[in-house]
Amino acid sequence: MAKEVQTIGVLTSGGDAPGMNAAIRAVVRQGLARGKKVKGIKRGYAGLLQGEIIDMEAKGVSDTIQRGGTILQTARCSEFRTPEGQALGAEVCRKHGIDGIIVIGGDGSFKGAQKLAALGVNTVAIPGTIDLDIACTEYTIGFDTAVNTAMDAIDKVRDTSTSHERCSIIEVMGRGAGYIALWCGIANGAEDILLPEKYDYDEQKLVNNIIANRKRGKKHHIIINAEGIGHSASMAKRIEAATGLETRATILGHMQRGGSPTCKDRVYASTMGAYAVDLLCEGKSNRVVGYRHGDFVDFDIDEALAMQKQLPEYQFQVCRNLSV
Amino acid sequence: MAKEVQTIGVLTSGGDAPGMNAAIRAVVRQGLARGKKVKGIKRGYAGLLQGEIIDMEAKGVSDTIQRGGTILQTARCSEFRTPEGQALGAEVCRKHGIDGIIVIGGDGSFKGAQKLAALGVNTVAIPGTIDLDIACTEYTIGFDTAVNTAMDAIDKVRDTSTSHERCSIIEVMGRGAGYIALWCGIANGAEDILLPEKYDYDEQKLVNNIIANRKRGKKHHIIINAEGIGHSASMAKRIEAATGLETRATILGHMQRGGSPTCKDRVYASTMGAYAVDLLCEGKSNRVVGYRHGDFVDFDIDEALAMQKQLPEYQFQVCRNLSV
Amino acid sequence: MAKEVQTIGVLTSGGDAPGMNAAIRAVVRQGLARGKKVKGIKRGYAGLLQGEIIDMEAKGVSDTIQRGGTILQTARCSEFRTPEGQALGAEVCRKHGIDGIIVIGGDGSFKGAQKLAALGVNTVAIPGTIDLDIACTEYTIGFDTAVNTAMDAIDKVRDTSTSHERCSIIEVMGRGAGYIALWCGIANGAEDILLPEKYDYDEQKLVNNIIANRKRGKKHHIIINAEGIGHSASMAKRIEAATGLETRATILGHMQRGGSPTCKDRVYASTMGAYAVDLLCEGKSNRVVGYRHGDFVDFDIDEALAMQKQLPEYQFQVCRNLSV
Amino acid sequence: MAKEVQTIGVLTSGGDAPGMNAAIRAVVRQGLARGKKVKGIKRGYAGLLQGEIIDMEAKGVSDTIQRGGTILQTARCSEFRTPEGQALGAEVCRKHGIDGIIVIGGDGSFKGAQKLAALGVNTVAIPGTIDLDIACTEYTIGFDTAVNTAMDAIDKVRDTSTSHERCSIIEVMGRGAGYIALWCGIANGAEDILLPEKYDYDEQKLVNNIIANRKRGKKHHIIINAEGIGHSASMAKRIEAATGLETRATILGHMQRGGSPTCKDRVYASTMGAYAVDLLCEGKSNRVVGYRHGDFVDFDIDEALAMQKQLPEYQFQVCRNLSV
Repeated sequence: MAKEVQTIGVLTSGGDAPGMNAAIRAVVRQGLARGKKVKGIKRGYAGLLQGEIIDMEAKGVSDTIQRGGTILQTARCSEFRTPEGQALGAEVCRKHGIDGIIVIGGDGSFKGAQKLAALGVNTVAIPGTIDLDIACTEYTIGFDTAVNTAMDAIDKVRDTSTSHERCSIIEVMGRGAGYIALWCGIANGAEDILLPEKYDYDEQKLVNNIIANRKRGKKHHIIINAEGIGHSASMAKRIEAATGLETRATILGHMQRGGSPTCKDRVYASTMGAYAVDLLCEGKSNRVVGYRHGDFVDFDIDEALAMQKQLPEYQFQVCRNLSV
Repeated sequence: MAKEVQTIGVLTSGGDAPGMNAAIRAVVRQGLARGKKVKGIKRGYAGLLQGEIIDMEAKGVSDTIQRGGTILQTARCSEFRTPEGQALGAEVCRKHGIDGIIVIGGDGSFKGAQKLAALGVNTVAIPGTIDLDIACTEYTIGFDTAVNTAMDAIDKVRDTSTSHERCSIIEVMGRGAGYIALWCGIANGAEDILLPEKYDYDEQKLVNNIIANRKRGKKHHIIINAEGIGHSASMAKRIEAATGLETRATILGHMQRGGSPTCKDRVYASTMGAYAVDLLCEGKSNRVVGYRHGDFVDFDIDEALAMQKQLPEYQFQVCRNLSV
Repeated sequence: MAKEVQTIGVLTSGGDAPGMNAAIRAVVRQGLARGKKVKGIKRGYAGLLQGEIIDMEAKGVSDTIQRGGTILQTARCSEFRTPEGQALGAEVCRKHGIDGIIVIGGDGSFKGAQKLAALGVNTVAIPGTIDLDIACTEYTIGFDTAVNTAMDAIDKVRDTSTSHERCSIIEVMGRGAGYIALWCGIANGAEDILLPEKYDYDEQKLVNNIIANRKRGKKHHIIINAEGIGHSASMAKRIEAATGLETRATILGHMQRGGSPTCKDRVYASTMGAYAVDLLCEGKSNRVVGYRHGDFVDFDIDEALAMQKQLPEYQFQVCRNLSV
Repeated sequence: MAKEVQTIGVLTSGGDAPGMNAAIRAVVRQGLARGKKVKGIKRGYAGLLQGEIIDMEAKGVSDTIQRGGTILQTARCSEFRTPEGQALGAEVCRKHGIDGIIVIGGDGSFKGAQKLAALGVNTVAIPGTIDLDIACTEYTIGFDTAVNTAMDAIDKVRDTSTSHERCSIIEVMGRGAGYIALWCGIANGAEDILLPEKYDYDEQKLVNNIIANRKRGKKHHIIINAEGIGHSASMAKRIEAATGLETRATILGHMQRGGSPTCKDRVYASTMGAYAVDLLCEGKSNRVVGYRHGDFVDFDIDEALAMQKQLPEYQFQVCRNLSV
């Protein structure tokens, strides 16, 4: 039967994302407001296994909501993928009196939360990843900041591309998902976007498009390349050879993971943090918080991991129509 | 029976909002992509009555998606509130061959669209206002940019408030609506927010809260004041007198209306612009585009104007719990 | 004879300015690199008198160079303006073993440093003020950040002024000095600037200029008003009445004092902090660090306070010529 | 004898830099204010040879001061390096009535200006390059913006490096010059900087430093790598292998060339533009504008090109001391 937790542990796992600190702060303060103890687990599951656990007070998370990164840090942990590691994790929780854990991370991290739940530690997961590649939710912590960071950088590349009448390939993050690429494609008015979900990459078509645009008077040609679609630098060389136009590649890289979170990331991450605490207070376990159809909701982690996500087709078509 | 339009007019009306240019650009390019002519009407309904109408080409909206303000400009127009003005507006449309109009603005502007629809010009409205105070939609063009601008400014005020251990009242925009204030309240970790929707303003309670926080060691006290709740400068004087703590007011003002739009504002405004064109192409009229429950949708303007909107109660409680 | 100090105290005084943390960090780390102890004095001279003094370690200033405000805080202190207060200040220094003090602040703060020097505590002052109103130096900590903050805000106001064809008065900081106003006047392409140093304010001339510009097709009229030249809101009302054009005032206020420092503010503040330590290590006292004619230099505080500063006449003329 | 020019041509050449538009605007408006005609030459010397020359009016440069890139565009031109090309350039000037040219660019572009001067077209050069690698001046257009762009990006990389306790190599621009790297080294509090001017690159020393810092508890290790010092990605692989710490490389690339110029870039570029016009009005030729020892000055181009520049040694030492 559902048992309300007394001591909540919180950790961040997987790649960091702007807004994670807002979520941590919300867990701490909502937890305290609801009469719980809150403990911070450093460096994700790795720190859990090492017992790197600290008490969290309201004041200790002051002045963190506006900061990038995660004050609890994060790390990979292959040991926690083994049954022995998971058992040790649950054991450490019990030793520290932690009967509920909130895990902030991507779907890899959710699987860890599933295991802890199965071993008797109540768990709630919060989707934290800049990639937006979690099926059960329309919002993940960090995407809004990352996509604005990428967009601002591409605006700058565009300035210099126009001055030099250059073709520019800009590679954005997203692992296997094209959300950052699609949003930047629309927001930066890119001439082409290459998305893993729409994998019809045809370099000759791209080259023809560049040449046609130049003839119509376009002063630059911006191509947004989602991570994982070919190698941007070699692509640039081939396109330059084929079109005769100066072509340069920029790989935005890790700057997309940092920076002060946007307003949306602070507000939604705060709300999700509070919501996760409320779930634990209701005795729930093995849940993941989502934002869906305009509301903050929650799902069973097993169901959530089984869902499929698709790029919004209408916006993809819009992007095509608008980049003339 | 529904008649597909041939020539689409587009205007911006009411207060300007970042992202309006993205919507205009989308209307132009989606319109052209669907084989329509597109005409720009300058300075809102005022320009319509004056016949300030220009042809729009795909190239003419290049390099506008990232710009604040509205390239079509906007103005107030009392004449268009009269039946004579409305009849003239419809007449001007016919003279210029405009059989469909897309109006980007707030709910005041929607009423103008209703009238034109009644007079036989097919109309679709797009919600454009930084205030987010339109009931039928969870998104309005410009809110995301405005709230980030306000948040960034408040982060800066907070730096200096902490250095001087000062109390700061920051007045944000919103007319009768507290959305900007609530979002900044959460995102800036404000100690107090004063909202029109939650009007229980009790200055003595506020003063007690400030004094209690100072005793607990808080180095600043940030109060977000929604436009319209009292006079920030006089409030600051009274609070300084009552608490003995240096208290300063800042009214953020018109800077909240400008600036390069955020990624969300560019992407959603672009999508709404394309969507509005698609509605006209389907022969629809008297519609307003909305974003609701995770999808772009449309409503009859009459129904939309009759809807009621409420501040999200859960987030308001979260804001209270987190600002300890 | 010059005596090298052993323990350096550092304090920030007067209004805070972005970059002060970079200077504090540099004092701490350069001091330690040169084998000194470093102590932080909280809340300026007020904290000195209260003995609010803490040991500073290299790690304690990690992650501060990018932060606005001052981690040591600042406060006004009327007591330190009296001979008794100053004697107490010197006494507190001796009690804590502080034989050298670095004061970061404006010229009011320099006078306190003079007094401590006269009482046997070696002192070096660093110009820290967003107003740039210190005669011996072409650089003061915080001006570069403040002027960029003001410029960005005015760019945003300009967007909406253009959309509405509005006249905008924007009041920037500067106490009695017009540097922020002049720089923004040039950088924002303002139509008019009102400066204390060029006080020939003639409202009728201003009104004529606005009307003439409107006739020539200018879509906005931006007036930068230095703090202290009349009351911006009343001015706006009078101008609206006289020109018939919608006119709005924005007072940027305290946001100009906060925010993450610009690169120049970080680099110059760091250099000045290190330079101040070097002066104390050479046994110097009653000195102020400056940046002048392309080099970091130092002056006797008495001489520095006697210098006069003038707005650059050529740039003022340029501003006039370019704002057609 | 010195002859005052009647028609001023202006071009941008070499790599573009933020602030070039401010300089162009100033040339146009100061030129008109002084009673001259002003013509814009598109795409640098290449456009000159093609006769791509347009009349410039005051209104035509409205709303450009805040934009990145160059509205006149820029291009490479090998033909202009030949005597035939240079003769043709002078010929085109005469044909268009251009008796004075203002060239905005780097020192390669200055050489073109020298040639035109020798062929009887009065020329003034303005240093425009983000690299700051021009010996006669302490300021070049674009450096201030570029270094702030790089710094902001590195702040973001640092957030995520700290979260993951990662070593990060960030490659900044600068061709053969280390100014951007040195400024970011100080401003971002980098643990190591690799500069072409201080070429003592010793990877084993770097590795030892990383390991020592980690032992002392540093959570990240930021290395700023000036363009041209080895290959950042391979370096990252070798360092990861040698230290056992996750190490990632980011090459900031062309985003450093774009973006809205900072206040300093707008103000100084505007002043240099006006100053260059004034020189032509005094009948001067073969001059380059500089900012030196706190003043706007000018030099003979031949002398300017013969000068040597050195990284500021004191700031390099400061950078070392502060990055403990």
